[in-house]
Amino acid sequence: MNPLYARMGTTIFEAMSARARETGAINLGQGFADGRGPEAVLQAAAKAVVERSNQYPPMLGLPELRHAVADHYARHQGLNLAAEEVVVTSGATEALAAAIFACVSPGDEVICFQPLYDAYVPLIRQAGGVPKFVRLQPPEWKIDRAALEAAASGRTRVLILNNPLNPAATMCGADELAMLADFCVAHDLIAICDEVWEHVTFDGARHLPLIGFPGMRERTVKIGSAGKIFALTGFKVGWMCAAPAIARVLSKAHQFLTFTTPPNLQWAVAEGLATQDGWVQEARHRFQHGRDRLRAGLAAAGFAVLPSAATYFLSVDLAASGIPLDDVAFANRLIDEAGVACIPVSAFYAEQPVTSVARFCFVKEDATLDAAIARIAEAR
Amino acid sequence: MNPLYARMGTTIFEAMSARARETGAINLGQGFADGRGPEAVLQAAAKAVVERSNQYPPMLGLPELRHAVADHYARHQGLNLAAEEVVVTSGATEALAAAIFACVSPGDEVICFQPLYDAYVPLIRQAGGVPKFVRLQPPEWKIDRAALEAAASGRTRVLILNNPLNPAATMCGADELAMLADFCVAHDLIAICDEVWEHVTFDGARHLPLIGFPGMRERTVKIGSAGKIFALTGFKVGWMCAAPAIARVLSKAHQFLTFTTPPNLQWAVAEGLATQDGWVQEARHRFQHGRDRLRAGLAAAGFAVLPSAATYFLSVDLAASGIPLDDVAFANRLIDEAGVACIPVSAFYAEQPVTSVARFCFVKEDATLDAAIARIAEAR
Ligand SMILES: CSCCC(=O)C(=O)O
Ligand SMILES: CSCCC(=O)C(=O)O
Repeated sequence: MNPLYARMGTTIFEAMSARARETGAINLGQGFADGRGPEAVLQAAAKAVVERSNQYPPMLGLPELRHAVADHYARHQGLNLAAEEVVVTSGATEALAAAIFACVSPGDEVICFQPLYDAYVPLIRQAGGVPKFVRLQPPEWKIDRAALEAAASGRTRVLILNNPLNPAATMCGADELAMLADFCVAHDLIAICDEVWEHVTFDGARHLPLIGFPGMRERTVKIGSAGKIFALTGFKVGWMCAAPAIARVLSKAHQFLTFTTPPNLQWAVAEGLATQDGWVQEARHRFQHGRDRLRAGLAAAGFAVLPSAATYFLSVDLAASGIPLDDVAFANRLIDEAGVACIPVSAFYAEQPVTSVARFCFVKEDATLDAAIARIAEAR
Repeated sequence: MNPLYARMGTTIFEAMSARARETGAINLGQGFADGRGPEAVLQAAAKAVVERSNQYPPMLGLPELRHAVADHYARHQGLNLAAEEVVVTSGATEALAAAIFACVSPGDEVICFQPLYDAYVPLIRQAGGVPKFVRLQPPEWKIDRAALEAAASGRTRVLILNNPLNPAATMCGADELAMLADFCVAHDLIAICDEVWEHVTFDGARHLPLIGFPGMRERTVKIGSAGKIFALTGFKVGWMCAAPAIARVLSKAHQFLTFTTPPNLQWAVAEGLATQDGWVQEARHRFQHGRDRLRAGLAAAGFAVLPSAATYFLSVDLAASGIPLDDVAFANRLIDEAGVACIPVSAFYAEQPVTSVARFCFVKEDATLDAAIARIAEAR
């Protein structure tokens, strides 16, 4: 069998969730929210599955959803995308796979930032590509142009950016994005932008999409996720947005990965994008409240909590908290002794891991967060 | 961008369906059924999306569905699969991608039969594998052991079998399967068995799974599809079944292609597998009725109709029908002049195409079939 997969472990998110399911631990590991998501989206999905077609929808996605995605980005991010530039996928993971397979040929070098989502490197390797890492570290997780230049070569073809960045919970500012755009143009790169956290931003700050920066419109694949926008991670409806010359190739990779995505869920997401801006805004406040509650609780328990500007997550610096364990040992102790699952941030590094940071998901009910805080404080 | 995808056309199924959508042609091309699917499955999906969790289900699939798949195969095919040997995927296309990526390493040779579903070859190539073709031809589409041996080498690692075979509409008998099992064992191959048509069989004949033959239990990946079982092609719920040593590797490829599949659809399919055997049996009769109706109509219109033992399809031999066109020209003329979409069977060949066969989907209302027959007869 293929050694790439034969030697691979189970993704950390599933591994920790499986342990939480088995032991009944409070699961602050894998990123998913308590709560039901927008009622109108659930009702639309239920209605569509009973009343409308459940046969193959168009391979590129339902026209209703492709238009809704384009409109959504016009309204929220000032982008001018045509519906034809949107390809619907079965979740953002499929979008990442299709984008990487379409953009990376054997021998191509791909710049990516560590920490990174654990799907990137296996997908790059499956494409025959060579990942080149730019290492970011706490507490700033700042991107440095010199490090970026050092990672580039004549074989570099693609840059993968996760912004906002999971697990760092940072969000690129306009200066940083302008610098990245300049770098991509200078090296003639395609940017694959995993922007699934684009709406989960706090303190009034707003996400800026790289595709909106000079020179990027024709060289960017922007990936989004309805599961993250509506806190319905099981919906598995995502999309890739790109100029026609790129979108055409993306669709060819997509057609042989999943081909299509359930139409009832596509209709529901289209309806949600058209009508649920209020829900998204309200969820942002609820999530920020959760962030603040967990931050306060962990700080009171003596943890050095890192800032969280976006995503479902905040992290603690173990060394700065006076905890003499690496992140994996800490996460194991926490689930075994305190009954709380978290994610060791070293899992987001393919090499030279940062080993002193543990990540917690805060998009949970107050009572759940409070119970977790109490357990963590006691186990400390 | 990756030349594999940059040079690729849109899959013939989507291309013909898109033309049918645009022109209002009767679509007997892409394989999907008229009708609603089992009411209980639709209601279960609607209920679950409103009442149950829409967050990430377990990466390997909901336990309820994994058990239901194992029970289903015990009941229908006498197989003894454990639920742990079932990995749920977002449709059979994803299952094919995951299975091929997990089983094929760069340089491996993969034996496949032509005609073949158009996803196989791009997926083998994306995996770095080398397809080796065994060519089947009408009217018998018989597998010949000598041709099989001629395709094998010391680098052969995998055999891909679609059984029942789309578009040939044939089904392997026990002798042929015993021969294939013997061949796989002799050459130490993994068999990836695309058995999505396993329940769409006619005239009382029943599908036999290759995994049930001597020596195959530990070397077979059996792929199935709820979309095909319940004629709900938009559900995009499929699965791979394999012994634990293989299933473990399959799951690693799956986790970075889609990670999970919508839980409400998984619950609905689990319920359907447990309760809808009657519907499946009844659908088989309805589909056979459609086959007979289309066959009679096309025969009356002077077409040489090839046998159809299984699948949603029957084909006509153009040369034997006295039609002086190749299949692509015929399909183009039929959609442009008669307003009926079919699939040219040459699309199922990567090399040395059979060019005299056109495929029609018959799982449609009587009135639709009758209208299509009238148009085809007139355009002839
Ligand atoms: C696909 S499971 C991972 C979910 C997530 O984004 C996270 O927990 O980081
Ligand atoms: C994924 S679209 C193809 C459906 C099908 O199996 C066919 O028409 O052959």
